[in-house]
Amino acid sequence: MVPHLTTALTGPLLELERHVIEAQTDIEHWFRRQWMQHAAPFYSSVDLRNAGFKLAPVDTNLFPGGFNNLNPDFMPLAVQAAQVAVEKMCGDARRFLIIPENHTRNLFYLQNVAALADIIRKTGLTVRFGSLIPDLQEPLTLDLPDGGQLTLEPVRREGDRLLLDPESKHHARFEPCSILLNNDLSAGAPAILQGLDPAQIMLPPLHAGWATRRKSNHFAAYDQVAREFSALIGIDPWLINPYHANCGEVNFQARGDAKSGEDCLVHHVEEVLAKTRLKYAEYGIDREPFVIVKADAGTYGMGIMTVKSADDVRDLNRKQRNKMAVVKEGLEVTQVLVQEGVPTFESINEAVAEPVVYMIDHFVIGGFYRVHTSRGIDENLNAAGMHFVPLAFDQIGSFCDCGLRPDAPVNRFYTYGVLARLAALAAALELEQTEPKA
Amino acid sequence: MVPHLTTALTGPLLELERHVIEAQTDIEHWFRRQWMQHAAPFYSSVDLRNAGFKLAPVDTNLFPGGFNNLNPDFMPLAVQAAQVAVEKMCGDARRFLIIPENHTRNLFYLQNVAALADIIRKTGLTVRFGSLIPDLQEPLTLDLPDGGQLTLEPVRREGDRLLLDPESKHHARFEPCSILLNNDLSAGAPAILQGLDPAQIMLPPLHAGWATRRKSNHFAAYDQVAREFSALIGIDPWLINPYHANCGEVNFQARGDAKSGEDCLVHHVEEVLAKTRLKYAEYGIDREPFVIVKADAGTYGMGIMTVKSADDVRDLNRKQRNKMAVVKEGLEVTQVLVQEGVPTFESINEAVAEPVVYMIDHFVIGGFYRVHTSRGIDENLNAAGMHFVPLAFDQIGSFCDCGLRPDAPVNRFYTYGVLARLAALAAALELEQTEPKA
Repeated sequence: MVPHLTTALTGPLLELERHVIEAQTDIEHWFRRQWMQHAAPFYSSVDLRNAGFKLAPVDTNLFPGGFNNLNPDFMPLAVQAAQVAVEKMCGDARRFLIIPENHTRNLFYLQNVAALADIIRKTGLTVRFGSLIPDLQEPLTLDLPDGGQLTLEPVRREGDRLLLDPESKHHARFEPCSILLNNDLSAGAPAILQGLDPAQIMLPPLHAGWATRRKSNHFAAYDQVAREFSALIGIDPWLINPYHANCGEVNFQARGDAKSGEDCLVHHVEEVLAKTRLKYAEYGIDREPFVIVKADAGTYGMGIMTVKSADDVRDLNRKQRNKMAVVKEGLEVTQVLVQEGVPTFESINEAVAEPVVYMIDHFVIGGFYRVHTSRGIDENLNAAGMHFVPLAFDQIGSFCDCGLRPDAPVNRFYTYGVLARLAALAAALELEQTEPKA
Repeated sequence: MVPHLTTALTGPLLELERHVIEAQTDIEHWFRRQWMQHAAPFYSSVDLRNAGFKLAPVDTNLFPGGFNNLNPDFMPLAVQAAQVAVEKMCGDARRFLIIPENHTRNLFYLQNVAALADIIRKTGLTVRFGSLIPDLQEPLTLDLPDGGQLTLEPVRREGDRLLLDPESKHHARFEPCSILLNNDLSAGAPAILQGLDPAQIMLPPLHAGWATRRKSNHFAAYDQVAREFSALIGIDPWLINPYHANCGEVNFQARGDAKSGEDCLVHHVEEVLAKTRLKYAEYGIDREPFVIVKADAGTYGMGIMTVKSADDVRDLNRKQRNKMAVVKEGLEVTQVLVQEGVPTFESINEAVAEPVVYMIDHFVIGGFYRVHTSRGIDENLNAAGMHFVPLAFDQIGSFCDCGLRPDAPVNRFYTYGVLARLAALAAALELEQTEPKA
């Protein structure tokens, strides 16, 4: 169903995969202990990059879209994982509210919301959609590409409870036990969502929204996770963890002497490039390193640059600066993350392919490749307006088969699943560490 | 992959299925609460009978075989369910011991043990096989039909711990965190398994073995579960629960005046037949009722009779008496269960088919049909030496699709899954209620 991928370089990766497959018992035991101590996010998706010589998560999404791109064969697995998550957070729940993004014309996004709702409904919960669209007064029913429909309803606040109006005067109003955010709150958590009764569980918590979340916190937590995991299976942490650094105050739109933060940026770009160059030499990788400069907050692939030398950030033109300065919903970029670039060496019919792994609770439930024909191997595949073809994984990645080669598809997907779970664990630590004091 | 089944009568069943599908949210909510209060068995399989006018579990196996008959497509689901079970019972576990039956020539049974071990290994546990074969001194490696191998090792006792010898002098001995019985202990729990350190978790507990377990306790617990569930969804409990009664002391091998217990048996057979006849009249079912008389303890389909009138049990000949008197491993039948017979109206190419649903923890992980060409619709399909063709379910049965008819395959399998979970819940209650006082 899914064509095999041709990974150009397989030397060190095969070594990494061999370590992962051989240590499966230790790895699963370690994960079990971690999940006893740290609550997995309700759901997450992780973008991986497979460079052949290293394999690393580059982005961990706590408001994943794309559920409609998953392999429908794995639906029972997603439902079962959601059952476990529902049992943990609210065994007594019946009513579930999803708050999607405010899009009404992005039908692929809405199809994702419908796919997500379908998973949750199949666990036996009643699911409705509460919208934050400011001027929405009445339910708005939208037609979906697959022939289905989705009704967005205005959310109401009554005291410290969030609810929806009754469907008719014969119905009671809809008071959800849990609220699942599929809206990343780039514009900040609106007042209507603040100070809710803690019995109405918010998933993920408000501070996971992009108005407060910082990638640098995530990757700091991932450093910790990657270090511990690498010690467990006896590998160099660099093989699964890109170098990174962050600058607190960068003003991309200032000019001349006012180019505040540029020195910090130049310094970190030089440092990450230098450290990466050393690792390339150590592993005999004959490539020019690059770094990705991206907004420390925000998503949607805006505010991302590929940089090959410090000069690249010194000589940004007006257009590049504008592009970097603002991400989604006017969120201004002042904090930036400098991350070692991990080239993508996976391709399908000469098109670059980036795996995205989906999890519900701590269970891998599938994933897909973003397949892109016109981009280079060192560019961001999640750029705004980017056109990709999703190619659903045909293997689940939740277990390996030690009888086969470490790079057999079932085992490669297992390694992907392990890396994705490491990122989800880092997200769990990050959310703990950044939780606002009560 | 699996041909559709032709169920001859669909009237009342369709009504039952409609109630189940419509009440899905209530049902799942109810199950979530039940599983919060009662620990599901580690694993179980449930034989269902679909009479068209009623659908009921007739046997709940706490030492299920047949894992090799499940649809391999559902393996990820079984692994994920086992992960949840392992996390619950022993998050810190690494080493898992399976104690199979003492068969060394029944290769299909051993293939089942290998399939079960494969599921558990894929959760990341190390699995080995400890055998209770009395004279086994050294590891015994057996070749399996699928080309694999399975090594039975003698179990050792050291103080209150069960263990296996080291693989070589370079290895440590194997001290399991958990012991999974796939041996139903018909001959009683051997001394080596008694009084173990409770930290070595025994699954299921020893009192689930057939030397102590009684079907009448199970069906008494099922009465309670079926009553509550039927009230929840508004159906007559009889539609999912066969009448039953039990006799404490029957001696099938006595003669003449010494035919002890025969009166009790005759009385209960008459009573169950009479009550069933009334229900048949109520639902307009034009059939002759029958009862199944079976050993209250024991398995393997021995000691089972189909009875259409009280005369049938009065006039047992020597051969029938001998057949009833002993089940597996010489376990003597003195207690018998009289159960309303539920005819099977499912057939595939004119062959009688009986669904068997498998669960790990409280999750349905698949099932198969026992398909038998030469037996009648009112006979036991699990008889000794019986030849059946397993036909794996092609749908999982863990969720329904309200958009489809109640008898659409996905929904029929959901109803099967619900009935099987009711039986597993009854087993949970039964094991609680029969737990020996410490």
